[in-house]
Amino acid sequence: MATTITRVVARDIRFPTSRELHGSDALNVDPDYSAAHVVLETDAPGGLAGHGLAFTTGRGTEVVVAGVRAYAPLVEGRTLESIVADLGGFWRSLALESQIRWLGPEKGVIHMALAAIVNAVWDLYAKAEGKPLWKLLADMEPERLASCIDFRYIEDAITPADVVEILRRNAGSRREREEELARNGYPAYTTSAAWLGYPDDKLRALCRAGTAAGWSAFKMKVGASLEDDIRRARLIREEIGPDARLMMDANQRWGVSEAIENMSELTAFDPWWIEEPTSPDDVLGHARIRQAIAPVRVATGEHVQNRIVFKQLMQAEAIDFCQLDACRLGGVNEVLAVLFMAARFGIPVCPHSGGVGLGECVQHFSFFDYVAVSASLEDRAVEYVDHLHEHFLHPVVVAGGRYRLPTFPGYCVAIHDDSFATYEFPEGEVWREPAAAPV
Amino acid sequence: MATTITRVVARDIRFPTSRELHGSDALNVDPDYSAAHVVLETDAPGGLAGHGLAFTTGRGTEVVVAGVRAYAPLVEGRTLESIVADLGGFWRSLALESQIRWLGPEKGVIHMALAAIVNAVWDLYAKAEGKPLWKLLADMEPERLASCIDFRYIEDAITPADVVEILRRNAGSRREREEELARNGYPAYTTSAAWLGYPDDKLRALCRAGTAAGWSAFKMKVGASLEDDIRRARLIREEIGPDARLMMDANQRWGVSEAIENMSELTAFDPWWIEEPTSPDDVLGHARIRQAIAPVRVATGEHVQNRIVFKQLMQAEAIDFCQLDACRLGGVNEVLAVLFMAARFGIPVCPHSGGVGLGECVQHFSFFDYVAVSASLEDRAVEYVDHLHEHFLHPVVVAGGRYRLPTFPGYCVAIHDDSFATYEFPEGEVWREPAAAPV
Repeated sequence: MATTITRVVARDIRFPTSRELHGSDALNVDPDYSAAHVVLETDAPGGLAGHGLAFTTGRGTEVVVAGVRAYAPLVEGRTLESIVADLGGFWRSLALESQIRWLGPEKGVIHMALAAIVNAVWDLYAKAEGKPLWKLLADMEPERLASCIDFRYIEDAITPADVVEILRRNAGSRREREEELARNGYPAYTTSAAWLGYPDDKLRALCRAGTAAGWSAFKMKVGASLEDDIRRARLIREEIGPDARLMMDANQRWGVSEAIENMSELTAFDPWWIEEPTSPDDVLGHARIRQAIAPVRVATGEHVQNRIVFKQLMQAEAIDFCQLDACRLGGVNEVLAVLFMAARFGIPVCPHSGGVGLGECVQHFSFFDYVAVSASLEDRAVEYVDHLHEHFLHPVVVAGGRYRLPTFPGYCVAIHDDSFATYEFPEGEVWREPAAAPV
Repeated sequence: MATTITRVVARDIRFPTSRELHGSDALNVDPDYSAAHVVLETDAPGGLAGHGLAFTTGRGTEVVVAGVRAYAPLVEGRTLESIVADLGGFWRSLALESQIRWLGPEKGVIHMALAAIVNAVWDLYAKAEGKPLWKLLADMEPERLASCIDFRYIEDAITPADVVEILRRNAGSRREREEELARNGYPAYTTSAAWLGYPDDKLRALCRAGTAAGWSAFKMKVGASLEDDIRRARLIREEIGPDARLMMDANQRWGVSEAIENMSELTAFDPWWIEEPTSPDDVLGHARIRQAIAPVRVATGEHVQNRIVFKQLMQAEAIDFCQLDACRLGGVNEVLAVLFMAARFGIPVCPHSGGVGLGECVQHFSFFDYVAVSASLEDRAVEYVDHLHEHFLHPVVVAGGRYRLPTFPGYCVAIHDDSFATYEFPEGEVWREPAAAPV
């Protein structure tokens, strides 16, 4: 019997993280971690539903919710079976919708709204199959998996035949890698220790606690003041020692020349990478920076809008690490495109996480990547931020500096009803107190 | 006495142009020309108000309206004087808003919403000064004009000193060019003759009528089927003759290799340019296409999201013509950035027009460009589409294939009340008839 999507429920949920300066960096000075959260209700027995989200940072979340509602008529009334029969066609029916497409195309608000819906569809599909997303993807026939990807505008970098070839090449050894992941999990690094808004003593204490908890890779925020960056980098290096990895993240604060100049100073602290040294839109700028600051490596991706910009970052040899985001890209289908391009170009994928619900999403891609795509853990780690996981029915499990393999069916972004009661905007308890209203 | 902006009114207005296939092309098969329209109400006597818009194509316009409303609290209560005292700072206060920025940054829905507001602010300013926008810009002190531009991420292509130098260089001769424009207007080309949805006999008739009306530059839509493109190109060439300019517009329908292959066939019809041969996001793809199809020239811009992508298109020698859009870029301030970069790179600006209200906006930039920036008409023409101008209080005036110099104070996108009564979505008359509801 067919399962029909009866209703698309889009909600605005915001956590007042700015009150403690969690998540603060050189451009995002006061984020309230938030999401446009989507539930695809169905007529299936037992309340089967698909959950997805697009991460935001507070004000404007309602605009993404409006984007979800604009797409809703294209999804309501469809059966899961009809969607699953042509997952690539489903994606295109939204991304290329003949009038809505003008609002992107394939970027920004409308693409984030698409991502939330597409992710919810894959959650629904994975639940219906009783598998976690990573496993659902790993078990798909190569040709069918390739058919989920929209190759328009990336055929000059990857083809369906390339995807099939990569999957077949890894098929023989994938069982071993699945077992390894079940035993050991997947490497992670922490961003929880060094937000820009934290004072020095808090930084020291968090680095010490992180090291004690088994972390050996730490990310610090830079970009507001070079003098501060140098002081903080020295302090963090003192705490974590010379062998731990230290990532630096400028969050787009610099122009091209400024990035090159500042990194010539910060290279003394042996950064493992510099992340978002300039605008995410500036492919050529990233390429110039990378060339100038080698051997320091360049990472970017949390704000890279779609597969077309990632393609160019790879073609131009502008990045050493691909930090794709599960809901800035157009959901699972487009993430697949980027994973396979990265494998072709030999670029490690270290997904963007943190925020709210991002770890819950992206872990699946890294597990899938190791099982079926890159088949490598070298130079790879998933970001981890220790915030807000308690709101999820199936939060990520991270221990000893590694993500543990998820086994729950689905894509794991269902949020507790209690959390909506407290944090939904603007009706939730926390937003109804006058003092708590965002400025 | 200060003028305070008391309220931001954002409305969704849609014209059912898809019923006649006006505006149809290879990707936009059924546009309903629409806009998120903004009025900045003030407390000034006589109902002084600023008008702006962001052009859209129907469904999803409400998402841009939601974007405008997200910015409204940053504008309401401000005085015109405080904004005008630091126009660059005003622009940054919206574009870099610490939470909303996540939804772009500087692209898509949220950037279009910003454009509508920024354009309305300039309209208000120009009206308060009693000048048309082009004249307001031309009369500004060079240093002050430069201060309107956000140079972040483009300092490697243009600096404030470059802007000042360009303006000073042209200052001595500008009066002559103003007089010339008042006499002769500015060259235009027509897109009204050759929409993709039009049958051959209608094409022929429109080309003949266009030639009779003084047009010597025609744009045709291509990209749906090469065979059709060839047949239609031949037919149009027969009608307009060998000397008229024939622009071709693929509206992003092709991949990189496909564009190169198809243009090798279409070059037989002597196209003046190929527009949007592939994704507007693909700088490197445009560069490859341009190199491969020379001497046919490459134009793009109506979907280019911001100054950072235009910078790269120029740096990579990927385009021969810059077709900036007045409300996809972040309004007047960012258009200025692109105009000056184009002048530095020696690339003619032929703005995107058509839609609804776009000609009313962009004409000011071309007039300003000739007076003060490029000081050249060579290889330059503003697009013209003969639709929907009747809804504007001060529509463009085009005669003999040229835009006439606007003399009304402001930026000319105020819409008649009657038009809102008929076309506002979903309350307007035309949308209340059940048969007229969009599918």
